[in-house]
Amino acid sequence: MASLKALYASDGLDRPEFKTNMNVDYVIHYKIAADKAQTEAGFTQLIEALTKVGLASEVRNGDESSVLVFVKVASDKYLNTHIYRERVQDWLYGVRATSLEKDLDKAFESEPVSEAERLRTVYLLMTKPKNEGGAGITPKTGQWEQVVSIFPLHDHKFNSSWIKEWSTKYYLNDQDLNRIRNRFGERVAFYFAFLQSYFAFLLFPASFGFAAWLILGRYSWTYAIVNSLWSVIFFEWWKKKEVDLAVQWGVRGVSRIQHPRTQFQWDHEAADPVTGEPTKVYSPIKRLQTQLLQVPFALACVSILGALYVFCFGIEIFISEVYNGPFKSYLTFTPTVILTAFTPMLSTVLGNFAEKLTEAENYETNDAHQAALIRKIFIINFITSYTPLLLSAFVYMPFGNLMVPYLDIFKITAEKLSSEKVIITQGFEINPDRLKKQIIYFTVTAQIVNLALEVVVPYVKRKAFKEVEKVESKMTKKDNQAAASQDAPEERAFLKRVRNEAELDVYDVAGDYREMVVQFGYLALFSAIWPLTPLSFLINNWVELRSDALKIAVSSQRPIPWRADSIGPWLEALGFLSWFGTMVSSAIVFLFSGDAEGPGGDPSNVNVWGLLLCILLAEHFYLGAQALVRHALSQIDSPGLQKERAERFTMRKRLLEDSLGPEATDRPVPPTAQKGEKITREALEAEARKESTGGGRTPEQSFWLRQQGMDETIQIGRKLISQAKTEKN
Amino acid sequence: MASLKALYASDGLDRPEFKTNMNVDYVIHYKIAADKAQTEAGFTQLIEALTKVGLASEVRNGDESSVLVFVKVASDKYLNTHIYRERVQDWLYGVRATSLEKDLDKAFESEPVSEAERLRTVYLLMTKPKNEGGAGITPKTGQWEQVVSIFPLHDHKFNSSWIKEWSTKYYLNDQDLNRIRNRFGERVAFYFAFLQSYFAFLLFPASFGFAAWLILGRYSWTYAIVNSLWSVIFFEWWKKKEVDLAVQWGVRGVSRIQHPRTQFQWDHEAADPVTGEPTKVYSPIKRLQTQLLQVPFALACVSILGALYVFCFGIEIFISEVYNGPFKSYLTFTPTVILTAFTPMLSTVLGNFAEKLTEAENYETNDAHQAALIRKIFIINFITSYTPLLLSAFVYMPFGNLMVPYLDIFKITAEKLSSEKVIITQGFEINPDRLKKQIIYFTVTAQIVNLALEVVVPYVKRKAFKEVEKVESKMTKKDNQAAASQDAPEERAFLKRVRNEAELDVYDVAGDYREMVVQFGYLALFSAIWPLTPLSFLINNWVELRSDALKIAVSSQRPIPWRADSIGPWLEALGFLSWFGTMVSSAIVFLFSGDAEGPGGDPSNVNVWGLLLCILLAEHFYLGAQALVRHALSQIDSPGLQKERAERFTMRKRLLEDSLGPEATDRPVPPTAQKGEKITREALEAEARKESTGGGRTPEQSFWLRQQGMDETIQIGRKLISQAKTEKN
Repeated sequence: MASLKALYASDGLDRPEFKTNMNVDYVIHYKIAADKAQTEAGFTQLIEALTKVGLASEVRNGDESSVLVFVKVASDKYLNTHIYRERVQDWLYGVRATSLEKDLDKAFESEPVSEAERLRTVYLLMTKPKNEGGAGITPKTGQWEQVVSIFPLHDHKFNSSWIKEWSTKYYLNDQDLNRIRNRFGERVAFYFAFLQSYFAFLLFPASFGFAAWLILGRYSWTYAIVNSLWSVIFFEWWKKKEVDLAVQWGVRGVSRIQHPRTQFQWDHEAADPVTGEPTKVYSPIKRLQTQLLQVPFALACVSILGALYVFCFGIEIFISEVYNGPFKSYLTFTPTVILTAFTPMLSTVLGNFAEKLTEAENYETNDAHQAALIRKIFIINFITSYTPLLLSAFVYMPFGNLMVPYLDIFKITAEKLSSEKVIITQGFEINPDRLKKQIIYFTVTAQIVNLALEVVVPYVKRKAFKEVEKVESKMTKKDNQAAASQDAPEERAFLKRVRNEAELDVYDVAGDYREMVVQFGYLALFSAIWPLTPLSFLINNWVELRSDALKIAVSSQRPIPWRADSIGPWLEALGFLSWFGTMVSSAIVFLFSGDAEGPGGDPSNVNVWGLLLCILLAEHFYLGAQALVRHALSQIDSPGLQKERAERFTMRKRLLEDSLGPEATDRPVPPTAQKGEKITREALEAEARKESTGGGRTPEQSFWLRQQGMDETIQIGRKLISQAKTEKN
Repeated sequence: MASLKALYASDGLDRPEFKTNMNVDYVIHYKIAADKAQTEAGFTQLIEALTKVGLASEVRNGDESSVLVFVKVASDKYLNTHIYRERVQDWLYGVRATSLEKDLDKAFESEPVSEAERLRTVYLLMTKPKNEGGAGITPKTGQWEQVVSIFPLHDHKFNSSWIKEWSTKYYLNDQDLNRIRNRFGERVAFYFAFLQSYFAFLLFPASFGFAAWLILGRYSWTYAIVNSLWSVIFFEWWKKKEVDLAVQWGVRGVSRIQHPRTQFQWDHEAADPVTGEPTKVYSPIKRLQTQLLQVPFALACVSILGALYVFCFGIEIFISEVYNGPFKSYLTFTPTVILTAFTPMLSTVLGNFAEKLTEAENYETNDAHQAALIRKIFIINFITSYTPLLLSAFVYMPFGNLMVPYLDIFKITAEKLSSEKVIITQGFEINPDRLKKQIIYFTVTAQIVNLALEVVVPYVKRKAFKEVEKVESKMTKKDNQAAASQDAPEERAFLKRVRNEAELDVYDVAGDYREMVVQFGYLALFSAIWPLTPLSFLINNWVELRSDALKIAVSSQRPIPWRADSIGPWLEALGFLSWFGTMVSSAIVFLFSGDAEGPGGDPSNVNVWGLLLCILLAEHFYLGAQALVRHALSQIDSPGLQKERAERFTMRKRLLEDSLGPEATDRPVPPTAQKGEKITREALEAEARKESTGGGRTPEQSFWLRQQGMDETIQIGRKLISQAKTEKN
């Protein structure tokens, strides 16, 4: 494996397997199924399909039950015509404002092909449906079930310098993001740009939060208001920045160019009302019916996860606040154990269900599918992440005392289970530090654990997997060396490295976004409880930014460099959290400010109408601030938008000159500058002569002949003016 | 005057003055000032300026202290080059998707010039600044102070058929609106389209409201919810319809083409960062400072008008509910008299102030100026229209009893003023019908009065004005006939008609919008009090639609046919009212449902937290419904958007073929379909030979030479597969 150690060893990059990618564009990991004849037939089809779209291939041994197919473009010139077509499409869809050079060579001279562009085009060539000119290879589905994955090879030289540079840098600039963009595509670059902006924005609440922690203490109105305002500004600013980046990267509006989903099932084909081309149609009514299933799905999520939380919450309170029997210190961990065991399980089950549901909604394009899936994932994450704190703040603290009688159920159960017949209990008292403890757990402990998991777990998993394989190989007495010995000695190291990369996880940017959005939610909803929250996130995100880079470089396959013009559906999620956060934090501050015990478990201590008024005001404060910030930001020019305007201006001018000649932009000159009527007059004089010889003059003609030329009009006008009696005189 | 009677008299259109407009495009009404020499000089400049931009002119006597300058384009060919330029500009700004014919004659053959287009171009020719190729005439300001107005002449033949047709028709279709558009431009057409859509949408709440009135009674939750939902649907639908209409009329995005405001004052000139052309700059900070004055302005509006209302409200309650002395029946009218006298006065004062403020904000374009002004006007109208009802619902009904002691001030004043020393009072009791009476006043009485005023007042005003003039003429013994006698006999009737049109008001579409938006507000905010409100509006609007047409045709000068792609800032106002209305009506229903007396004057009867919760829920119901409706509507295709897509598709295809040749859309063919590597192979074989003669082969080359051609790859792959041990076997 291209392990971190190897990559950073002083001789790392001198090692032959890291020096070259053998000009390979993509590697196809092809599994050998039990039915070998079928596998061979499938393999033949694969190579034929690749060759048909102009791709060259080489095959080598993979692990013991797979082969690796190496793919590259047979001719760069042929690839260029494809890239040119893509660029033309961009121009037609308005993604690029500058039109293209007509000459191919010139076009590529002025705009060379970036690595991301090349890899994306080759990937599309392999995966696009046959009727759109691709090979139609769809990993893991249908005819191509044996294709485990299709991945490009890492550029380890770049990766190593990238990681080295970032780990010694405090702040990432546009150039750094640009490099990511050229290697991994705009979708990944957008994630890093977002994370970097978020990190930079965190500097303010981190320092303000620190000051608030020192001076204002917990549950401060000032902190809550500043925090809410900050979240509004950050959200609106990012919306603008996103557009700006998209323009700078030349991908603005790229989401309009949709890649059809291969799994899409259509009802019938119909002619497009606009282009007349046949398009595949799926009844929107049917889809709506499936979409409506989201309502029971959301309810199921709420009730299943909610029930779990309420149950654990009950046990926890019972044990920590009421129960006073033996093993108390151990039993305290019961709810944590239950939650740790069940939450991931339930999340996975619900996540799979969400995927099935989205599948059934049968979207036509990949983007629509992704967006619908992300919305569901967000609901699940929202519930799993925030329910414990919401329960503590709005159930435990105000209603704690009312709950105690219901906790007897645990007492009875415990009595039945234990040998002692009477469980010793202590008087119930609200624990005012509960909220703070929880938020510290979620914002510090959980983040550290999570970070560790992200880096360590894949590593351990891989190691363990390797060991198991080794043992298995030994047990089946299969000489693994046999396969390797087939490798040419000069390729051996390279192939070993590729086999390792084939086993890495696929990098999923949505997971990283999810993590950050959930974190933003903690900040927006609960940071008034513990104003050091943003500081903790600031530190975490500095590391996160680097560890995510490491994740891509070391523990994932190189991602397909997709384009994107936004962070997509996560934007909605951020907006929602910013809005909801304003209301939740105002409610929390209202309940607990002054006295950290808040209502102290007794709902009669809560001023309900005050609380509602406070939420109502907070919400309108949010809406007002949003409108204001939006207006203010819209007044500010940005380099991206300026660039776009300049490009459009140049394009328009050029188009105009191309199609109408350079004089089209000149102003028309009036026929005869000083004596405008002369032309008409001559005609009319002819008319007049005609009249005298019997031809009729129309009243209109007579009307306009009364004063002949400008000078006469002026003369008569002056006469009329001098004759007039004005009011004053 | 082209009076209604004359227009509809059986011989109306046979009268010579209505038959022809003498080919006149515009009439300039030029006032003769006391300083005749100056007036003459100004007049000379006017005629010269007109001639310079290619306009022919004739001058005739106006009334006794003015002359009329008749303007027409000297040559149609010259006008066409101007119109062509405008169309090119439209194309450059993306307003029109189809590109233009290069040949002028062909271009005008396929798309003839509409009357609105012609008139707009001529008007711009007269009023655009000199550096943009216009004559720079700005009525009533600076050098052109003597220019009272510039107006086109009515087409009475069209007007008469228009009014006749509409008054016999129940429903207006797209064709009717299209005719308006071709005559009066899109700005006016948008008003009628909006009014027609609003009218059609009212059918539902009118019938539902009638049913609710019969079955559910006042203050019904069902009615309030349905009404609020309706307002959301109408608002979202109209937003879509607006875009659709703009596309169908070919004006989508026309608001991007801005006409600079002649009154704009700039600080300095700077080069545009994009085009490099010098642009006039006014510091946005300065403007922001001026804009901040809006805050004290709004507060002043609220406090001045609020104070007036509270004062009258106090008197009214005192007289109607407490006072029981002499003249009670007459005194009841005191507040109405005060309000009727002061509201229009204060509105006018505040309106003028709003205009001054907007002037000081110094916008660069007419649209920005208009939008800023309309926002202020909306605030004033909001306060004057809804304060009385809001006071009754949320002050009188809940706090009535608490107010009574403060009403003693009136009692003492009355006692001081009256001869009797003791004013007889009766016990104060809340009048539960007050709200209903008020809403009926505002939705029925006021609407009828308003309608009458709109049609009758201008007529009476004109008549009276005429009489005064006649008397004055007689008194000064000035023989008015003298001026008229200068008229050529064949022109006399025509000139009389033009002199009449010169005296008509300028049609202001903003006033009509204001009326409808305020009406929509009553519906959204208060119709739960009296569910017959929408029915009354339905009837009113049927008449309104026709009377507005009549106003344009008969009692206003023909409007300049401006373009527009939306109803502009009124859209925001509608959205605001729909949102605010949901909250207000839910609060009203909460307070009064079940018992029309509501809190009965005693605030302790109000369930404050229930009320707040109700408002909170209503608001989120609104936001949720809005998101849902928006989503649903976005799924529906519309003819306009389809047309736009089709146009853009055709344009793209044509552009592509024009610039890259027709083969550009074809798919590239892979170099050699079956044996993709051959080309490279030959080169590599040469390489191989080179190697054998001492040249080195790179590892990359060796890697790709191991399997030569597709067939070999397949063969070796099959071998590898057959050798592999699969997990199953």
